[in-house]
Amino acid sequence: METGIKYFEDNQWLIGEEKFRTDWLGKAETIMCLGNGYLGIRSATEESYIGETRNTFVAGTFNKFDDNEVTELPNVPDLIGMDFRLNNQRLDLTLGTVSEYQRTLNLKTGELIRSFVWEYQEIKARFTFRRFASFSNKHLIAQKVEIQNLGVPLTIEVISGINGQVSNSGSQHFTEGDKALSEGKYMQMMPYTSQSNIFFVLSTVHKIAKEHDIYDETKKRIEMGRRKIYNRYWLDLDQNESVSIEKISSIHTSIDLETSGKTLEEVKNSSLVELKQAEELGYQALHEESKNAWDKQVWSVLPITIESENIKDQLAVNFAKYHLHVMTPAHDERMNIGAKGMSGEGYKGHTFWDTEIFMLPYFTFTHPEIAKKLVTYRYLGLEGAHKKAAENGFEGAQFPWEAAWPDDGETTPVWGAADIITGKPTKIWSGFIEQHITSDVAFGMKQFMDVTGDKTFSREKGYEVILDTAKFWASRLEWQEANQRYEILEVVGPDEYKEHVDNNAFTNYTAHWNITLAMKLYEELKANDPEVFDRLNKKLDLTRVYNEWQEKVAKLYLPQPNKDKVLPQDDTYLSKPIIDLTKYKNDAHVGTLFHEYNLDQVNNLQATKQADVLLLLFLFEDLFPKEEKLINWNYYEPKTLHDSSLSLSTHAILAADLGKLEESYELFNKALDIDMGENMTSSNEGIHAASLGGIWQMTVFGYGGVRCLDGKLRIEPHLPKAWNKLSFGIIWQNNPLTIEITKEQMTIVNHGEKEVEIESFGKSYTIKEEIIITL
Amino acid sequence: METGIKYFEDNQWLIGEEKFRTDWLGKAETIMCLGNGYLGIRSATEESYIGETRNTFVAGTFNKFDDNEVTELPNVPDLIGMDFRLNNQRLDLTLGTVSEYQRTLNLKTGELIRSFVWEYQEIKARFTFRRFASFSNKHLIAQKVEIQNLGVPLTIEVISGINGQVSNSGSQHFTEGDKALSEGKYMQMMPYTSQSNIFFVLSTVHKIAKEHDIYDETKKRIEMGRRKIYNRYWLDLDQNESVSIEKISSIHTSIDLETSGKTLEEVKNSSLVELKQAEELGYQALHEESKNAWDKQVWSVLPITIESENIKDQLAVNFAKYHLHVMTPAHDERMNIGAKGMSGEGYKGHTFWDTEIFMLPYFTFTHPEIAKKLVTYRYLGLEGAHKKAAENGFEGAQFPWEAAWPDDGETTPVWGAADIITGKPTKIWSGFIEQHITSDVAFGMKQFMDVTGDKTFSREKGYEVILDTAKFWASRLEWQEANQRYEILEVVGPDEYKEHVDNNAFTNYTAHWNITLAMKLYEELKANDPEVFDRLNKKLDLTRVYNEWQEKVAKLYLPQPNKDKVLPQDDTYLSKPIIDLTKYKNDAHVGTLFHEYNLDQVNNLQATKQADVLLLLFLFEDLFPKEEKLINWNYYEPKTLHDSSLSLSTHAILAADLGKLEESYELFNKALDIDMGENMTSSNEGIHAASLGGIWQMTVFGYGGVRCLDGKLRIEPHLPKAWNKLSFGIIWQNNPLTIEITKEQMTIVNHGEKEVEIESFGKSYTIKEEIIITL
Repeated sequence: METGIKYFEDNQWLIGEEKFRTDWLGKAETIMCLGNGYLGIRSATEESYIGETRNTFVAGTFNKFDDNEVTELPNVPDLIGMDFRLNNQRLDLTLGTVSEYQRTLNLKTGELIRSFVWEYQEIKARFTFRRFASFSNKHLIAQKVEIQNLGVPLTIEVISGINGQVSNSGSQHFTEGDKALSEGKYMQMMPYTSQSNIFFVLSTVHKIAKEHDIYDETKKRIEMGRRKIYNRYWLDLDQNESVSIEKISSIHTSIDLETSGKTLEEVKNSSLVELKQAEELGYQALHEESKNAWDKQVWSVLPITIESENIKDQLAVNFAKYHLHVMTPAHDERMNIGAKGMSGEGYKGHTFWDTEIFMLPYFTFTHPEIAKKLVTYRYLGLEGAHKKAAENGFEGAQFPWEAAWPDDGETTPVWGAADIITGKPTKIWSGFIEQHITSDVAFGMKQFMDVTGDKTFSREKGYEVILDTAKFWASRLEWQEANQRYEILEVVGPDEYKEHVDNNAFTNYTAHWNITLAMKLYEELKANDPEVFDRLNKKLDLTRVYNEWQEKVAKLYLPQPNKDKVLPQDDTYLSKPIIDLTKYKNDAHVGTLFHEYNLDQVNNLQATKQADVLLLLFLFEDLFPKEEKLINWNYYEPKTLHDSSLSLSTHAILAADLGKLEESYELFNKALDIDMGENMTSSNEGIHAASLGGIWQMTVFGYGGVRCLDGKLRIEPHLPKAWNKLSFGIIWQNNPLTIEITKEQMTIVNHGEKEVEIESFGKSYTIKEEIIITL
Repeated sequence: METGIKYFEDNQWLIGEEKFRTDWLGKAETIMCLGNGYLGIRSATEESYIGETRNTFVAGTFNKFDDNEVTELPNVPDLIGMDFRLNNQRLDLTLGTVSEYQRTLNLKTGELIRSFVWEYQEIKARFTFRRFASFSNKHLIAQKVEIQNLGVPLTIEVISGINGQVSNSGSQHFTEGDKALSEGKYMQMMPYTSQSNIFFVLSTVHKIAKEHDIYDETKKRIEMGRRKIYNRYWLDLDQNESVSIEKISSIHTSIDLETSGKTLEEVKNSSLVELKQAEELGYQALHEESKNAWDKQVWSVLPITIESENIKDQLAVNFAKYHLHVMTPAHDERMNIGAKGMSGEGYKGHTFWDTEIFMLPYFTFTHPEIAKKLVTYRYLGLEGAHKKAAENGFEGAQFPWEAAWPDDGETTPVWGAADIITGKPTKIWSGFIEQHITSDVAFGMKQFMDVTGDKTFSREKGYEVILDTAKFWASRLEWQEANQRYEILEVVGPDEYKEHVDNNAFTNYTAHWNITLAMKLYEELKANDPEVFDRLNKKLDLTRVYNEWQEKVAKLYLPQPNKDKVLPQDDTYLSKPIIDLTKYKNDAHVGTLFHEYNLDQVNNLQATKQADVLLLLFLFEDLFPKEEKLINWNYYEPKTLHDSSLSLSTHAILAADLGKLEESYELFNKALDIDMGENMTSSNEGIHAASLGGIWQMTVFGYGGVRCLDGKLRIEPHLPKAWNKLSFGIIWQNNPLTIEITKEQMTIVNHGEKEVEIESFGKSYTIKEEIIITL
């Protein structure tokens, strides 16, 4: 398969393309998307092409199109688009000859650069486009276009402004809003979201090097159309003459923390002041500030270095970290990470278990201050979780499968894509019965509390989440008279190709863990922290609930390995037919099984979408002995299609744990390919956020061997053959540790103030300053 | 200026293009648009291009996006779009070599045909696309695509279905709606309008000649996306092999007369039955039916024949008639004609005075049964007109400047495009103060009653409109103590470049006419038709109002010619500066004055947008002697920019009346060019409906010399130099007359049952069967 992605052997920071093909627009838009956690911009080109998806999202600004749809991140009026007409011919790279083409995203600086020479008829010109979303002032977006005329004299018409005609695949979330122009060049548009009533202030200005052109009123014209405001500039370029056009834009909304309580008029005015300051500074200076912020906030923090035969490994880690920071709303604890970040409409900006199980660990171990916001979001979500539990006849906090604004409750759409046999839309059961999300939230919370040791947070928020989720689980258990035990029936486990199953192992074990943890916490708080205990006891009626926990957890059914030591994924999985899945597993496209089977049919095969039992064995690695894990790995891996991007990394880590380093590294490479691979359409709807967390986890948990087990730090590295050295860092209970691993030894340096205890290959170590362990 | 419009010297029925340029998409989409009065479809190509506007509208289905917007015709999910991938290369005419390209609309049959040979890399194929909107079953749209493979073996992927992601420039009027698939190929989509709550049932099916392909499940795949349902077909074509793909679609809505009271489920089912029948018949047979309906309903009815040196003249008349029937909802009196028909988003599908003054006369004189529906629409609009009058503190019926659903009342948007100086949106005053619409409605009504002699309609509906509008005018007049007379202050006349003027001549004279007419009617009814008189007297309080009329009309100020015999357009017009407008008048683009002046500035020049005083002199030709008309023509024509498409035809007719045949014919040709001329962007927002009515009027009223004056028929022809013969027909009070005019004589044949009286050049004639008048 032809691939359009370009790596650079000598540069671990660049990802890009050297060929422009409109069939590949989606890939480039997604994997080179820009953002800063406040906003995300797909990297659609300035000029438009059929097949593009022109998206800008601002975290947390959810809106519901109508009562038949669920809330989603609305596609904000476009600030990026610019049209160019050269001697009245529209710039269009599908026409004429394009040479010296290159588009690259610099992961380190967050700058997207596109350059080429375009020849069409008598026109010949070199274009260089630069842009970034500022990492220092998260409201700012800056672009710079340089055009060098290499041919006949040109009149270049630039048409650029703010375009509010964009939508979410046809659903329009915005009122048209007011438009305004100041001093003939500062353009603003102020739409409202239609249901959540959030106002946006979008501002833009152009700064053109040929000053006499921009200030010559006969050479520009302001135009306003429906949902549009833009300027036309006519620039004359003699042969070899160049011009640069900077476009500086900003976005503010009424839910920004800093605009809280301000009127639209006030925000409009302050945006204009800010825009003028940014215009004054100009592209280059703004970019310096942004680059420094990237360095300070991301790249200088516990850097990861891989010495590998394959440059792609290091690149992938940089790629993952870049996108994790681009997509994570670190500025506001009322927001969380979308399953596609803010790089596409897929999953509507909603937050899933992907956060706790896949992305959160990166932040927990390296950016605890950001992780704290992400777990606080779940604490703020308790109200919505109570709502959901009550709606379903349960107690406590049942977290929504898909979450948007914290108190929204469940936001999973009810209907999905068409069934190929019946042609009818498929019901999405996740929102109803994919209930393991609640223990996943508890898991992420516990990991955060253990790794950071943040007692204040735990006492104020974390403990409550653990207790409240356990309360849900207790009410959820169903007494089965015939079996004389509690069971959990009619669920979807992590493997979404098995709907309405009973006693999904992952669900039952994690529910059991959640309740057991809550019981232990209850006892500890009662004994040692009466203040917190009394408050929570009063709020959650703990004493009554504790008795229920005691009774129920003892009788909760935990599926046991069969005679072959295979842990059954659910009550019926192991009795279903097995088919050869090789051809589907080898297809670069996921979901190809569905070209031949429908969901009902797949439901009745031993075909697993994604890590399920194996995820349980990874997350709770003490549950089963290594031998059984190996048996289960051998059993489930061939039956796992990895049709979810939440799968390969788990298998890769587990394989590494089990010493299958060759298979692990193969899976590692497949996992990188989810977004960086040869399938040029896999990322069309947005980046695979969980997979990016997975890249970090494969590196640090898999090959670095880091694990937080029952509140203790364990580090048992095993490098794949291709790697000579791996160094990375984590923060353990406020102590930054840097770890350098070679095939021979591991060096851990403690940069913190306190001693750190670790376990490694059965031994315990105390690290004061530095320790070297021979491998 | 390069032009893309192609005429055919030997064919008066074809208009088209022989060059494909994406800059010209809008022109082709508009002037070759399809429709049947029930629906209108812009002729966007099957495959998509940047710059296209993909519109389908269904008459009367108005919806309001939100409370800040006015109601408009929503852009219906697209049924026309089809994507083709040849060996995985998307069909795109901007790429490779296109030869033998031709796109033509056959005005006679309503069929749009596009054909070309496309060569790109190793691909070479001939494509022929045909489509029509059925004129016999107005819910049906049919397409046929033939592909002949002229190169290497091809796998052609066809992606086609229903696309609900379209919007009105970003405003989405529809809920997503349910999607359904029957028997693997019948696709349906059932969205609702968001505010008016009208449901739509859109259905489509493909019929592929290579039957083994369409029925081979492995060679097709149904897909549903957000607001989308479509099939993918993979067709294999060896060299020289051909395939044809028919796509048959239908649209029904809950406001269709025949679905009244039916549920969505019922309409969905009946649509499916109808679709299957249409599929069975196939493209060719469906087209025969449609073509016959065009012949029967349009082309065989009082045909117009022009023997001219210029084929374009005859073509233009055919073009005008084609579009007048395409845009006119002849099926439902609750609907009227939009100012852009249903060929674009411009003016939102709203009805203006354009109907009465420009398009209605065509129907009144040739299709009285359709005209009756159009005037009935105004009768149904009385409720909205009362609402508007009451809101403004007036009595009676004040018709809205822009009308949508009959009882909506005023639907003119309040804000328009940006002022180039201030950058702020311009307030649209028409909805508030362009009040002549009310007498225009009365004028159209009176003409309809006079020409058709339809007493039943008059007694039931027509008289009431005349009386109720007069009642409005009486309440509208303002007593000016200083002048001791009634005046009409603060209006916009037909010339919209003069806002807030006092005593616009057109407005004052037509108001005076309206009241005078009502008084006469009052007296006649009172004397001769007590039943109708009593009913209307009771309903409208006529006796009181009649006294008011008597008092006021005698004192209503009618602007008088100045010492140079120029009739002042308003109180201040003649005192404003005069500038040379030649350069703007000669520009093929309208509105170019606004690149240099803003509306306030233009307000203060003797620069007129469109026929104003001259329109008055045309419509009420007895008001002033010919000599004064000539003076006024000479005065106002150089000051008239013809920036409205409601202008040139009036000047052309008046010039013909005044014996200025050469100037008239020049204006005639300019008028044709509004849509058919070399300005390739003038029709982007839709066709100029009034201008099309103007083409008919220039022909029949201008050169045919037909006029209905004070209830009498007058025919005084004068052919332009280029014309040898003109024949046409009208229906005078139920009697079809055919009129043949040469330079020497006029022959009138009366095909009706009664004698017809006419006047011609000062003489009266009675036509029993045939009459020949020497010219």
